Amino acid sequence: MAVDQVTSTDPMQAFYDEIHGKDLDALWRAHAEGGPRDASYPPRLWKWSVIEPLTRRAMELVTPGPDAVRRVLTLNNPSTRGGATHTITGAVQVVLPGEIAPSHRHTAAAIRWIIKGSGTITMVDGEPCMMEPGDLVLTPGWTWHGHINQSDGPMVWMDSLDVPMVMTLKAMRQEPYPDELNPATKPIGDSEARYGAGYLQPVWEHSTSPISPLLRYPWARTEKSLHDLAKFDASPFDDVAFRYTNPATGKDVLPTIGCWIQMLRPGVHTKAHRHTTSALYQVYRGHGSTIVNGTQIDWEEGDFLALPPWSWHEHINGSTSDDAILFSTNDGPVFQSLNLYTEQAYPDNKGYQAVTGQYSA
Amino acid sequence: MAVDQVTSTDPMQAFYDEIHGKDLDALWRAHAEGGPRDASYPPRLWKWSVIEPLTRRAMELVTPGPDAVRRVLTLNNPSTRGGATHTITGAVQVVLPGEIAPSHRHTAAAIRWIIKGSGTITMVDGEPCMMEPGDLVLTPGWTWHGHINQSDGPMVWMDSLDVPMVMTLKAMRQEPYPDELNPATKPIGDSEARYGAGYLQPVWEHSTSPISPLLRYPWARTEKSLHDLAKFDASPFDDVAFRYTNPATGKDVLPTIGCWIQMLRPGVHTKAHRHTTSALYQVYRGHGSTIVNGTQIDWEEGDFLALPPWSWHEHINGSTSDDAILFSTNDGPVFQSLNLYTEQAYPDNKGYQAVTGQYSA
Amino acid sequence: MAVDQVTSTDPMQAFYDEIHGKDLDALWRAHAEGGPRDASYPPRLWKWSVIEPLTRRAMELVTPGPDAVRRVLTLNNPSTRGGATHTITGAVQVVLPGEIAPSHRHTAAAIRWIIKGSGTITMVDGEPCMMEPGDLVLTPGWTWHGHINQSDGPMVWMDSLDVPMVMTLKAMRQEPYPDELNPATKPIGDSEARYGAGYLQPVWEHSTSPISPLLRYPWARTEKSLHDLAKFDASPFDDVAFRYTNPATGKDVLPTIGCWIQMLRPGVHTKAHRHTTSALYQVYRGHGSTIVNGTQIDWEEGDFLALPPWSWHEHINGSTSDDAILFSTNDGPVFQSLNLYTEQAYPDNKGYQAVTGQYSA
Amino acid sequence: MAVDQVTSTDPMQAFYDEIHGKDLDALWRAHAEGGPRDASYPPRLWKWSVIEPLTRRAMELVTPGPDAVRRVLTLNNPSTRGGATHTITGAVQVVLPGEIAPSHRHTAAAIRWIIKGSGTITMVDGEPCMMEPGDLVLTPGWTWHGHINQSDGPMVWMDSLDVPMVMTLKAMRQEPYPDELNPATKPIGDSEARYGAGYLQPVWEHSTSPISPLLRYPWARTEKSLHDLAKFDASPFDDVAFRYTNPATGKDVLPTIGCWIQMLRPGVHTKAHRHTTSALYQVYRGHGSTIVNGTQIDWEEGDFLALPPWSWHEHINGSTSDDAILFSTNDGPVFQSLNLYTEQAYPDNKGYQAVTGQYSA
Repeated sequence: MAVDQVTSTDPMQAFYDEIHGKDLDALWRAHAEGGPRDASYPPRLWKWSVIEPLTRRAMELVTPGPDAVRRVLTLNNPSTRGGATHTITGAVQVVLPGEIAPSHRHTAAAIRWIIKGSGTITMVDGEPCMMEPGDLVLTPGWTWHGHINQSDGPMVWMDSLDVPMVMTLKAMRQEPYPDELNPATKPIGDSEARYGAGYLQPVWEHSTSPISPLLRYPWARTEKSLHDLAKFDASPFDDVAFRYTNPATGKDVLPTIGCWIQMLRPGVHTKAHRHTTSALYQVYRGHGSTIVNGTQIDWEEGDFLALPPWSWHEHINGSTSDDAILFSTNDGPVFQSLNLYTEQAYPDNKGYQAVTGQYSA
Repeated sequence: MAVDQVTSTDPMQAFYDEIHGKDLDALWRAHAEGGPRDASYPPRLWKWSVIEPLTRRAMELVTPGPDAVRRVLTLNNPSTRGGATHTITGAVQVVLPGEIAPSHRHTAAAIRWIIKGSGTITMVDGEPCMMEPGDLVLTPGWTWHGHINQSDGPMVWMDSLDVPMVMTLKAMRQEPYPDELNPATKPIGDSEARYGAGYLQPVWEHSTSPISPLLRYPWARTEKSLHDLAKFDASPFDDVAFRYTNPATGKDVLPTIGCWIQMLRPGVHTKAHRHTTSALYQVYRGHGSTIVNGTQIDWEEGDFLALPPWSWHEHINGSTSDDAILFSTNDGPVFQSLNLYTEQAYPDNKGYQAVTGQYSA
Repeated sequence: MAVDQVTSTDPMQAFYDEIHGKDLDALWRAHAEGGPRDASYPPRLWKWSVIEPLTRRAMELVTPGPDAVRRVLTLNNPSTRGGATHTITGAVQVVLPGEIAPSHRHTAAAIRWIIKGSGTITMVDGEPCMMEPGDLVLTPGWTWHGHINQSDGPMVWMDSLDVPMVMTLKAMRQEPYPDELNPATKPIGDSEARYGAGYLQPVWEHSTSPISPLLRYPWARTEKSLHDLAKFDASPFDDVAFRYTNPATGKDVLPTIGCWIQMLRPGVHTKAHRHTTSALYQVYRGHGSTIVNGTQIDWEEGDFLALPPWSWHEHINGSTSDDAILFSTNDGPVFQSLNLYTEQAYPDNKGYQAVTGQYSA
Repeated sequence: MAVDQVTSTDPMQAFYDEIHGKDLDALWRAHAEGGPRDASYPPRLWKWSVIEPLTRRAMELVTPGPDAVRRVLTLNNPSTRGGATHTITGAVQVVLPGEIAPSHRHTAAAIRWIIKGSGTITMVDGEPCMMEPGDLVLTPGWTWHGHINQSDGPMVWMDSLDVPMVMTLKAMRQEPYPDELNPATKPIGDSEARYGAGYLQPVWEHSTSPISPLLRYPWARTEKSLHDLAKFDASPFDDVAFRYTNPATGKDVLPTIGCWIQMLRPGVHTKAHRHTTSALYQVYRGHGSTIVNGTQIDWEEGDFLALPPWSWHEHINGSTSDDAILFSTNDGPVFQSLNLYTEQAYPDNKGYQAVTGQYSA
């Protein structure tokens, strides 16, 4: 009763109550409250030393198949709704010898970044793709895909999907394949033979799709390219860094996920900048630190680091003798398409942040 | 206690508990639960007969200015986080004679669709844009904009912004203009003089931006074009319908918001289809119904209708003598850019849904 | 014998003779001779006072039909191989009441710029296009087209084709239509109803072709747009000038021919510049002069002026009370596509050339 | 007198004479004469066995330098104005140990296809490009370039330029470099380190130019790619064939010249087709025949073959044990940009032409 009375004596509040009941709201109230705040969230690190034992437990507890579909531990950033960042997911998938992760398809697109093992095949719309450490393998949206480990050791990789974007857009649909594994309709290496040279295209192919026709980017060329580039140029913010591209268009590999490979040379300490895009790093080699908004985050091989949007960040290779290599996925293509990309160099202190704290999970 | 004991005796549950504590999750559990569901939500109608008296109340209760900024009633779809659909907002803005809605800018982009009144100017990055009923006026992201009513009657328009998209992307930033109204730096009609012919461009202009350089699309040509097109062709699903375009590229007016104008001829009953995009309709003229997933929703002049994504829908003009005209905004450009657009014609019953219910708010 | 002896005693000349016999040449000889010279050619003016009486004679002498096909006087620039410039042709076509210029098609594309008369239709792949003074009508490459004059007066227009480009590329093919006139398969005004608003597109159309889907650009909007633009901005080199565009892409109307409309305001004297492209002007209204490489060329209504590539040029409206209006075609799209476009402002004398001579044909 | 009388008694002829004097022509006369004919011309073969001894003579007769600029024998197709085809040139360039072909630049673009030798550098706008057999090196239009042979053997390569196109467009300009060789401003391999992976781009590079930022395409990857593709797919008309691409856009390497590499597997006899584009082949390896419009043209290593536009052609590898490899340049990008590309499969005899003659030069 008291509440009702109060309400009825404040015409503004009465108005608010009335319009809320009609699914309307007063914009000026939001404005009065200061409008959008907290456009970002804290960074998050997942230690491989924590994940790795859990993947072993998962090996015992669950088997890919009709019930479990995938043996996947997802990186669950508490600041997001089920992603590693607010736009992309990250996860670790393990397939044991002889196992099949049964085929399905979904409107969300995925990339696989191979961490460990050999001899597993991902079947992407009928093309069997080999998976070796350091390879990048694409499974574009709505392609049938399953995995089969034909080797005698476990296979471990990073999955990264655009699920948060697609969920946000209410565009997520999913379908199981009627059988266990969609069959191979092409020989192993088909798309690599066509597009793998990068700058050669079969004269009869004329792809203009925003989805790369090349499904696998093998590690050997990636690694060599990093070392080649290191001799010529580097970014003050990212050191030696490449964006993987769709060879048919020169743009990002997928319209919703960008992929980068990055080498921090021994002793490198980059300058800080920030951009509207977010990223999920996997430490492929080495150890070091990333300073995010003044907080130093130490990482070592196998760790995953979620970089939130619009956050000052700079990278440090913790070794003065060895390279550190970071693979990362990002939402860059989305920001480019929607004209929302901006970046800034850190203006103070010659570009280096003051470290104001140490990250602890 | 009982709960704890159960947990500790179920190794699976114990595992789940443990990984949750480490910001990890088990994908197979989500899969076991059936994966993504409910990719859409119900349609929503806002009646002008409800909104209109509330705008009058708002005229008494609040005045645009430093505190309130805007006299805007937002369409608050309860199935979304503050949008009319999950990707775009809708609202009704009223500016009274002599009032100024002070200038600001935000990364979110807006369109204005003029409903009533005359003699108000929207200042868009220094270009004063006239606002007359049926005009479409753009305020692209990060442009300074304010409104000033120099007439002797109230001015009413529909706002539609990409705020939910931009919020989702954590890319929302906002800035008040240091003064009340950003000053005019161009004469009235500047962008119309350059690009208003639609298919003529000043020889010294070479815009390739995804943001239309034309800021105002006046009603006279829109209306004439609808009647011209009606004599030649129409869509089975949308009847006589145009997409507004960026004259410099032929694409949608903004990278995040598409705008349509649509005329349902007397007696027209379109066939049903569905698409991954959502839309917010404003009934500019006439009355009729839209059947969404079997539910008939009756509308009349001034009403707003939110069409959720992937929903079967067909339109009926309720009059056999007069046209009905619908303006709408949609997230089409986003779905096109991210390669997520699909549509389907309703396969049964010659393309018409069976009506299984009547909409009530 | 003497000649042979001379040859045999000069080893260089002997070498040249030998390789020429084998369809080889010595590049160094060309280099020694100074390489490419004379990249351009003189401007050329055709007076309407000369052409007009000849069109009358042509009306008596020849009738369009199976034998003559077209009553067309072509502007034969002696510096080119059959063009008005080296890349585009210009011509005057006359169709008398009741006449039909029978249908054919060719890989070369054409534009028609209507000078005089009314009531003639050009049939473009089944779409009948009205022709009124000041209209621009397109007949893209390989479209069937014929003309029929259903009025009671003669019809006169300017033709401009990309024939020299297409001939150069050995891509010219031509086919007569089996009958007199290809039949109408669409109503008059079809493409105008779809694309004529310029910035509205039927929601079911998704043209991305480099060929404009709009076939007719009527004079009324062109003229109004010139006057509108005049109030806001102008080019120092071209005064008030628009490029006609393909409304589906914002680019030139055809991949091989650009079209401009240009208004020199009373008393205007533009500054000089030069560009790699050439143009053919038709004086639609008024009188004045163009100074090309120092030579003053006076023109009046109806005249045609060929502007050679890379030539300094500036325009003068000869009247201080009336506008002068120039329509022109150019090879701009070709130079843009092939990355060969450059332009320069005249660097001396505040941008104005010294007049060193007067043009006489 | 007689002539004058005849003329004066034929009013048509009198008219023709009169208008010719005024730089006008009568289109109907051209039409009466049947319009454009002979859109193509015969194929042309240049034998290496003929060229090679002449290059040796040229080594004795001429030295690159200020006077001779380049020791280049051009393939002078008598059916064209100084090209190997009507749109592209072909030539053989030789640089002897210690020699410098001095730097210059021209609006025409060039490619170099290395035939023999090692240790020569082409300096392209400050980037020194290594040249090894089978490499493709680009010198885009208006880039300073010179060559220096630092090895102890002669260097031989094929030049192919877009000179006929650029001359036709009157866009040819040329400038000598003030000094002998433009200096290196970048280290050897700069563009390869950035773009040489083909599908990796430095994150700070954002080229969208139609000119490839990659200047050298080394043979090793080309050769491997041909063998890889051979295992998967081939064209019925061209067997195993790649188009070299601009890695930043996926399109042809230059806006005016396309480059192909093609492997005819042992015993292959392709089907015939024709297209509006022309090509110049260099036989890099092997021997065989090409049948052009019924004429069989036998070729062996080192030969050059000009394929005219719109000519039926099929290829035969003359060996049943060894691959034949053809490099070729073509005008494909021009035809694509100008919307003039068409192709047809040979409709009769299961796709194979009847051989009606044997080519002899």
